Amino acid sequence: MPTPPGPFTGRTLIDLARDLRDGSTTAAELTGLALDAIAALDPGLNAFVTVDAQGALDAARRADEELAGGTDRGPLHGIPVGVKDLIRVAGLPATMGSRHFAGYVPDTDAACVTRLRRAGAVIAGKTTTHEFAYGATGDRSANGPSRNPWDPSRMSGGSSGGSTAAVAAGMIPLALGTDTGGSVRIPAALCGIAAFKPAYGAIAPDGVFPLSRTFDHVGVLASDAAGCRLAYAALTSPFSATHSSTASPSGAHPSAAPPSDTRPSAARVAWLDPAGLFDGDARVTDAVRAVAGPMEEVRLPVGAGEELREIYSVVVSCEAAEVHAERLTKAPELFGQELRERLGAAATLPGWRYVRAMAARERPAAAVRALFDRHDVLALPAVPFTAPPLDQRAMDLNGRQISVLTALFALTSPWNVLGLPALSVPAGLVDGLPVGLQLVCRPGNEHLLFETAITRAG
Amino acid sequence: MPTPPGPFTGRTLIDLARDLRDGSTTAAELTGLALDAIAALDPGLNAFVTVDAQGALDAARRADEELAGGTDRGPLHGIPVGVKDLIRVAGLPATMGSRHFAGYVPDTDAACVTRLRRAGAVIAGKTTTHEFAYGATGDRSANGPSRNPWDPSRMSGGSSGGSTAAVAAGMIPLALGTDTGGSVRIPAALCGIAAFKPAYGAIAPDGVFPLSRTFDHVGVLASDAAGCRLAYAALTSPFSATHSSTASPSGAHPSAAPPSDTRPSAARVAWLDPAGLFDGDARVTDAVRAVAGPMEEVRLPVGAGEELREIYSVVVSCEAAEVHAERLTKAPELFGQELRERLGAAATLPGWRYVRAMAARERPAAAVRALFDRHDVLALPAVPFTAPPLDQRAMDLNGRQISVLTALFALTSPWNVLGLPALSVPAGLVDGLPVGLQLVCRPGNEHLLFETAITRAG
Repeated sequence: MPTPPGPFTGRTLIDLARDLRDGSTTAAELTGLALDAIAALDPGLNAFVTVDAQGALDAARRADEELAGGTDRGPLHGIPVGVKDLIRVAGLPATMGSRHFAGYVPDTDAACVTRLRRAGAVIAGKTTTHEFAYGATGDRSANGPSRNPWDPSRMSGGSSGGSTAAVAAGMIPLALGTDTGGSVRIPAALCGIAAFKPAYGAIAPDGVFPLSRTFDHVGVLASDAAGCRLAYAALTSPFSATHSSTASPSGAHPSAAPPSDTRPSAARVAWLDPAGLFDGDARVTDAVRAVAGPMEEVRLPVGAGEELREIYSVVVSCEAAEVHAERLTKAPELFGQELRERLGAAATLPGWRYVRAMAARERPAAAVRALFDRHDVLALPAVPFTAPPLDQRAMDLNGRQISVLTALFALTSPWNVLGLPALSVPAGLVDGLPVGLQLVCRPGNEHLLFETAITRAG
Repeated sequence: MPTPPGPFTGRTLIDLARDLRDGSTTAAELTGLALDAIAALDPGLNAFVTVDAQGALDAARRADEELAGGTDRGPLHGIPVGVKDLIRVAGLPATMGSRHFAGYVPDTDAACVTRLRRAGAVIAGKTTTHEFAYGATGDRSANGPSRNPWDPSRMSGGSSGGSTAAVAAGMIPLALGTDTGGSVRIPAALCGIAAFKPAYGAIAPDGVFPLSRTFDHVGVLASDAAGCRLAYAALTSPFSATHSSTASPSGAHPSAAPPSDTRPSAARVAWLDPAGLFDGDARVTDAVRAVAGPMEEVRLPVGAGEELREIYSVVVSCEAAEVHAERLTKAPELFGQELRERLGAAATLPGWRYVRAMAARERPAAAVRALFDRHDVLALPAVPFTAPPLDQRAMDLNGRQISVLTALFALTSPWNVLGLPALSVPAGLVDGLPVGLQLVCRPGNEHLLFETAITRAG
């Protein structure tokens, strides 16, 4: 565990929902704990860009009044939450981690923030994002790097590094992030929490600053899989309006019913050999596999890994270069050097390679569909090694020099390319640093994904 | 009329279908007429790359046997047809207009050719295409330029120049073409026949060599709109199997019933000011508008024309460069000089511009949807001038120098960008050369499009 523990360390969303309803805590108390923890812990971690103490306390008071009055908005009601600074929250600055957006304050909420508010969540503040979310290290941002709570000299991973560090340090129990190539799952794995990237489009991207529209997803981060499941349900449930407890026999929102975690999972789970995607640290692979438990092993066809990396890299490069074309021409000096160089290279990639990459998705998609004919869930590590030191860009692994930037998303980005639901859950430690078990399914089988995570990895 | 007239000059598909069924002609006779006309007229027009005399005579004999035996495959039964050399016909060479495909003989039919055969059509041969269909002039092809039957020193237009010249000269009554930016409608307008490009995807592109997959369409060419309608119905009807005359009360395929051309059209037709897309020859605009008749006038928003041209140019360039990337690297010398230079430039277009162009389609699409809220059919010229001389690439128009390559598809390519059904029908002569009236509708309103063409332009 990171030391010192925060007020939400070891308390799950399910615990908090129960405590709020049995009178052993209030939203105001939870919010106060969060604000105090941020004040105490955040200077060493840099998880937050903006803290909205007054707004959070006001929202918490309203949440308590509603609960006291019999209005229960479900499992997020009264829960303090952090929102990645790439996602618009009305009235709060949104820097996108960039000097280009210094002073920018949106006047509307992103769609996912509207959903959060309707679900009764209390927005505590905005969390550090890697500059424009274009980087999985989390250590390049206009407001500085977010740090890993297990070892602040190491990277949190990113790009949703602040959301992750805040939950991992126990400052808040829940956060929103975005995930284009692994940007919630990578930091979650490196910091020892859970993160879920839903199927493409399952959470509307409106109001979220784009990186690569074909692969961008909104995701959720919590200490465990069950917390991610609750948050995902709240963000996608058709029950978005207020429900009165008098109208609901259980006295709560339908999705607030405790999940039936104890029955054995019916999911057919297979281990996907990660070597087909990236030749990672064997100790990480072994640790993750031990947590996953015994299961049949499957492989991707030869060449699929390289194909998926090429597709991911070309599509993200061209789409990010499109997003930033005018900024790159008119005010390149406002980018950090690393991003400016990456975007400069991306802007010269020829269009025919983008066309080819988009069409090339069908082959790996067919290969993975074939795996899902016989298996419901694929298991593999989320990241092929543990958190590197801040600013590290190259490392020796298995006798060769690798690019940290590229290797970080080697095991997560395939599921963005294919638009598949993917969850990372804590899977123990290697050298005292967390590693993550990643589970992948096809859209519609999310219940099996969460069941598998809860029964196998707690 | 082009001189000399061919055997199908002045005979519509409806005439031929009637003559075949009342015993006044046979498929074998029609095929013999076509083959004789090709032998006599094609040396001066170069409409055909390959003539399949034996295959056509065999197919005609079978068609006659079927009709005599009571099996009627509908309005194309026994009709000689030409197929653009970009479309695969099993057993016949498919050059794509390129030296890269010299000697290539596919062993399967394109999906649209399978439909043609099931409809009983008789494939007379393969028609000249502009090299890889990348050009609206029709005068660059490995087997030489196709020529305009109204004046063989002028271009037919393209890229379906051979299919058009063959129908316009009366060698055959029907042909298949492809249309990525106007490649059936442009030559049809310049050569005085009708051509229909259906909604995107309405005719499957399988077995058709791609130019730009986002904009590629299969289209049909006939002497008049009613002929295009019959062919379109035959290529898209779910009644693709043989129908016995004993099973059908009318003694023929349902779509063979003569269209009710005489009732007044209920379509709300508007004139779309072509100046919003291109500043063309006013004499052409006036002539076309006179044929279209009195109607309300509508305009595109300022800037929409330029936006549509940019989208078209960027998307086609990148997609064509993708199709030809390996040929351009490994055997550039097999391209004609003009295409080699165009593809070389296209291969350097940055991917972010492609991304932006694809996303930019929504704005003009919304503007055109708004026009279709109040109108069913938009009318405008198909081409902003009459057929230029072969090889002409620049001309003075309205006091400025224009690019013939670009200007030819200025009025047709918007409907490829938007995927809308578009028909060109003959609209008289200017300076003794044909001009075309183009009609556009939204998918599902094709019946109104054809009704409008038949009632307004005959």
